[in-house]
Amino acid sequence: MGRWEPGARERLVVAAVELFTEQGYDDTTVAQIAERAGVTKSTFFRHFPDKRELLVAGQEALSTLLAEGIAVAPTDASAIDAVASGLERASAMMGPANRDLGPRIRAAVAASGELQERDALKSVGMAAAMSEALLQRGVAKPVAHLAAEMGVLAFKQGYAHWSEADRGDDDTLAPYALAALADLRAAASALG
Amino acid sequence: MGRWEPGARERLVVAAVELFTEQGYDDTTVAQIAERAGVTKSTFFRHFPDKRELLVAGQEALSTLLAEGIAVAPTDASAIDAVASGLERASAMMGPANRDLGPRIRAAVAASGELQERDALKSVGMAAAMSEALLQRGVAKPVAHLAAEMGVLAFKQGYAHWSEADRGDDDTLAPYALAALADLRAAASALG
Repeated sequence: MGRWEPGARERLVVAAVELFTEQGYDDTTVAQIAERAGVTKSTFFRHFPDKRELLVAGQEALSTLLAEGIAVAPTDASAIDAVASGLERASAMMGPANRDLGPRIRAAVAASGELQERDALKSVGMAAAMSEALLQRGVAKPVAHLAAEMGVLAFKQGYAHWSEADRGDDDTLAPYALAALADLRAAASALG
Repeated sequence: MGRWEPGARERLVVAAVELFTEQGYDDTTVAQIAERAGVTKSTFFRHFPDKRELLVAGQEALSTLLAEGIAVAPTDASAIDAVASGLERASAMMGPANRDLGPRIRAAVAASGELQERDALKSVGMAAAMSEALLQRGVAKPVAHLAAEMGVLAFKQGYAHWSEADRGDDDTLAPYALAALADLRAAASALG
């Protein structure tokens, strides 16, 4: 395998999720993941510090995109519209491979307490990134906190619906996330 | 030390949080915690499986009380009023010792990635318990999810304000949590 062969990172993620689902997270080694992906262990470690970080690959990128989308929304956009802009930008990084992995990642997370903790921290990180971006737009604190939680819920629910839906391959995540956000907006109206 | 000396559990929690803050979570051993609390290591292990679980002691009790408070709210109570009922019931288990520990626990969590993950999972568990209790009252799904997140935010913000406030010892957590919930309700109204 070449040192920088394109696609190694993606192959490692797919191989790891397959193995986690087949034999459990705890019983899967880095060596097994590398072998299944057809790369060396050193290649694994050039991409990920350990097997746990692999599963949340892209988390920082996701939080950054959510925050950027909020920052670039028009000045007069409402907090919810800014969150929608964040969801649209973050959705753009999720391709067909992410869609296929969704159910398998959820199965692996459901089977491992350690992954559940990592996954929970990921949600907290996404909420913090959106909340901070909203505060920088001058949104009041409780509104920013609640809108950020709505953004996290919308992203997760949208992703779940998108990866479970039996639809065309050209389906993108964005409309699913925005539909979930619209449901939550109606819920906020009912609760307010 | 007697095997079942009253107060051992509380002394272990206080000793652990002191040590986590003084020398860091990773460098603190179960033996040190037991010594500081004046109990044996076996006494530690009768109360907690490991040092990490110690810090989230009471988490299951908290989630149970939140859900119970929601379940016993009057049939015609709104989702937000049911969440308020859960916050009141859960607040009743938080005494002066919890109030004093608040800032020290936050310092220990801020200093440890492992504790951050555990703390994030705790929030997810609280939200799931409240969400489930609301669904059982017949609350619609998106409303239940959002109201549960508002309950978690209100509990955490209320607890932070309560433990930072320079007030009388007879101050209880409940009014702080309910004030935070009222702020979030106004925020929901603004977002809806």
